[in-house]
Amino acid sequence: MSKKIYTFDSTLRDGMQGEGIAFSVEDKLNIVRALDALGIDFIEAGNPASNPKDLEFFRRLQSETQTHAKLCAFGSTRRKNILPEEDSNVKSLMEAGTPAVSIFGKCWDLHVLRVINTTPEENIAMIESTLAYMKQNGKYVVFDAEHFFDGYKANPGYAMEALEAAAAGGADVLCLCDTNGGTYPTDIYEITGRVVKAFPDVQVGIHCHNDTGMAVAQTMFAVDAGATQVQGTFVGYGERCGNANLSTIIPNLELKRGYDVLGEENLRNLTETARRIADISNTWLPSGAPYVGASAFAHKGGMHIDGVEKIRESFEHVDPQKVGNSRRFLMSEVSGKATLIKKIQKVEPSVTVKDPVVTELVDKLKQLEFEGYQFEAAEQSFELVIRRLLGKYKKYFELEYFKIIGEQPLQEQEYPSSAIIKVKVDGQPHITGAEGDGPVHALDLALRGALKGFYPALETMRLADYKVRVLESSATTAAKVRVLIESTDGKHTWNTVGVSTDIIEASFLALTDSIEYKLTLDEDNK
Amino acid sequence: MSKKIYTFDSTLRDGMQGEGIAFSVEDKLNIVRALDALGIDFIEAGNPASNPKDLEFFRRLQSETQTHAKLCAFGSTRRKNILPEEDSNVKSLMEAGTPAVSIFGKCWDLHVLRVINTTPEENIAMIESTLAYMKQNGKYVVFDAEHFFDGYKANPGYAMEALEAAAAGGADVLCLCDTNGGTYPTDIYEITGRVVKAFPDVQVGIHCHNDTGMAVAQTMFAVDAGATQVQGTFVGYGERCGNANLSTIIPNLELKRGYDVLGEENLRNLTETARRIADISNTWLPSGAPYVGASAFAHKGGMHIDGVEKIRESFEHVDPQKVGNSRRFLMSEVSGKATLIKKIQKVEPSVTVKDPVVTELVDKLKQLEFEGYQFEAAEQSFELVIRRLLGKYKKYFELEYFKIIGEQPLQEQEYPSSAIIKVKVDGQPHITGAEGDGPVHALDLALRGALKGFYPALETMRLADYKVRVLESSATTAAKVRVLIESTDGKHTWNTVGVSTDIIEASFLALTDSIEYKLTLDEDNK
Repeated sequence: MSKKIYTFDSTLRDGMQGEGIAFSVEDKLNIVRALDALGIDFIEAGNPASNPKDLEFFRRLQSETQTHAKLCAFGSTRRKNILPEEDSNVKSLMEAGTPAVSIFGKCWDLHVLRVINTTPEENIAMIESTLAYMKQNGKYVVFDAEHFFDGYKANPGYAMEALEAAAAGGADVLCLCDTNGGTYPTDIYEITGRVVKAFPDVQVGIHCHNDTGMAVAQTMFAVDAGATQVQGTFVGYGERCGNANLSTIIPNLELKRGYDVLGEENLRNLTETARRIADISNTWLPSGAPYVGASAFAHKGGMHIDGVEKIRESFEHVDPQKVGNSRRFLMSEVSGKATLIKKIQKVEPSVTVKDPVVTELVDKLKQLEFEGYQFEAAEQSFELVIRRLLGKYKKYFELEYFKIIGEQPLQEQEYPSSAIIKVKVDGQPHITGAEGDGPVHALDLALRGALKGFYPALETMRLADYKVRVLESSATTAAKVRVLIESTDGKHTWNTVGVSTDIIEASFLALTDSIEYKLTLDEDNK
Repeated sequence: MSKKIYTFDSTLRDGMQGEGIAFSVEDKLNIVRALDALGIDFIEAGNPASNPKDLEFFRRLQSETQTHAKLCAFGSTRRKNILPEEDSNVKSLMEAGTPAVSIFGKCWDLHVLRVINTTPEENIAMIESTLAYMKQNGKYVVFDAEHFFDGYKANPGYAMEALEAAAAGGADVLCLCDTNGGTYPTDIYEITGRVVKAFPDVQVGIHCHNDTGMAVAQTMFAVDAGATQVQGTFVGYGERCGNANLSTIIPNLELKRGYDVLGEENLRNLTETARRIADISNTWLPSGAPYVGASAFAHKGGMHIDGVEKIRESFEHVDPQKVGNSRRFLMSEVSGKATLIKKIQKVEPSVTVKDPVVTELVDKLKQLEFEGYQFEAAEQSFELVIRRLLGKYKKYFELEYFKIIGEQPLQEQEYPSSAIIKVKVDGQPHITGAEGDGPVHALDLALRGALKGFYPALETMRLADYKVRVLESSATTAAKVRVLIESTDGKHTWNTVGVSTDIIEASFLALTDSIEYKLTLDEDNK
């Protein structure tokens, strides 16, 4: 049996401190669901004391259940010279109602004296009493030992005293934090090893930042030294240079060192989860992200392609399928097709690998990807691509034309945009106009307005989310945009995509897919 | 005296194999100049045998002189069973006319037998004779030992034999390559140490890839084991997950381990060089890039900001000035009030905490955040908010109106959108029309078209990035959208934001801020 390493994701807490990262409550719920589905052990969901919005989010979370993950609220030890139960931060932490809490405390005496301005003794008491209070209230407690490595180097005795206080308070995990990100991996290894030896009965965790570009290595080394909980953020978001990236660390631990982390089956969902979280965050997953990036197993150099075809291990350090990614130039090979077959069989179970439609689909997919399509976050558009190829598709309407007018400032009108649309259903033309808060809103209302008479089911449908991103790095307003739409009818939710240099056309394509999917869905469920 | 470590940049060779990377000859010349000015020791500028464009580039390079760097051409050992002087690849390499060459050869017997299909003995002869030929022709020779670590693990005897052949051929550097990027840092340390010991008279180099997210750590460990040449690419471009990132490794070596690499003075140009190379490459330097990224020393969390003000080392592992970067405090719901003062003082140094304008600004900020504004990725819009409050602001133009028309399908017209705009500058009206790939593109062109006559400096300005995000979780096309724009005039880059329920209006607000900031900037620099 291989040794179990526990994962602790802080995307919603430390990740939120990254520049340009902001989540809505709905985004946060979606991230919790994605991490839980993957099999992450702990999800640190926010800091209820410092951020009232987080407290509200925790209230919303209480009506959801997680399959696997333990939710965790983050906060500090009590303030000096009061009881834990008198401290408003501690109270907020309790109100969050999570099974686990992570409490950070000072381990560097310099900070005790100069940042929180108290005595070394009072700081020790703050740690022990806060943790003891949490344990009395039934919490699973992670002690985040802030600045542990720098503190240890400056005054090892005091740093260890802080951990002893945490252990005495009942900490389930002593998590060693390299808060400013500058500790050398070999120092992390050595110091973590000493802590593991000194506390044989408590789990030790590790929390690193990427300021020297070595957060992954630092984390690996801490685990090699005996740490069993790894903290990080799923795609590496976080203050300054980001936190240790769990989407890299997890496969490193599992595939390079043989630890038991997610297990083989869940690991295959790694790439999809990373892409989903990047999409929810409306940021880019760097194409070169280890294991999960679009380029991670892409081969460009001719010699590399030749080499990898002759011996897989030539230019691939692991099999991309193990992390749910794929080798890019081998889309047409049987191995890369396996995922596609699954998707096709969902629509038509009788299709097999040898069917010519599979090759057709591979070609179509390559062409669409070249145009800027990406289907990870738009599964239903992908299903429509398959349906069109298989002939299991019905064209519910045809566009004759649309015209959109936008105006500022508003004179008498209430809305800045209006749209006219003409469609044909079964040869019957219909023309409708609508006005809206913007061109896409007006177009959406006009299109559904024109179709409602033919398809009353569209009454229940509404857009749930709308995201736009410019595609090329040489991006200007003339570059291609990808529009992602999430739609719902109250029972189902589906995601569609459109790509064009024109944001209006891209939106129209995604809207069209959304409506066609809704009508297809209803027909299937009849 | 600290030990000298030599830098070897492969942005123009291995970096070129990264997805989405393409350089014009002019781009390449600019990169060579930037790297040379920084004090990089070797610049691997291309592969003249496999790429005729590279040969052309080497010819152009011959008319330039470098202050410090040695130029290097990359190629393979001769083909099997011929003399080096008969080999066309070897000939191209000579034609490149560089003082240095890097020659890659096989060190893994499996590859000898199955990829290049020759005998182990012939491969050894290929290495020795090719290198000897290069030395006879006066070249500085780097031997790139391909797949060295995997080869060593499979058959240490043969891998060492390959290095012996290279040394016998006269190699100046034996560079150990972790070609597929999967070797664990401690294995790199151990194996590199053995090579250093076995070849006391030849320099040892290291070449790593980021497939496990540990290329920086692997490289550091090789240097700790005695390697004295570090190969990488300046901002980490390269096949798959990229090469070891020199802009991270150099300050790590210099500031964390005390090696002599660029020297204190050149190191201060690190950030500028990284940004320049990213610009030339038409990609974005990730904001979280260690040492050189825009966020590398940016603080968002209130506690972090408080801490770093009390003790610099709290949340900064090195002084940002040493690498030519600077500390930034970000505006957000998680940061405190002290940050505001700093930003105000940048515009008007005389403002103090007690000034009523500070409270006014806090209120204004709260109101704007409530409306959906977020300034951490739009610093220049925030500066304009401050300027407006302080009266240090000039209204450069007034909007009379704009009208936008969009149409699908396209009949005769080339563009789906057109815009008409009327502005007033100093009471003088001006009206312009433009067409574009979408409504925002058309509006941007029309607005700048209308203003160029008054402000010719706007000619140099262009949009560099454009992002849209829907704000509320109950988001539909009628919900609020936040538009973020990045603009550049070739010298500066700035970021602005606009929020509205209408994507067109939000874009217009962000565009207006961008133009006003550009004109303010020019006025300040007059």
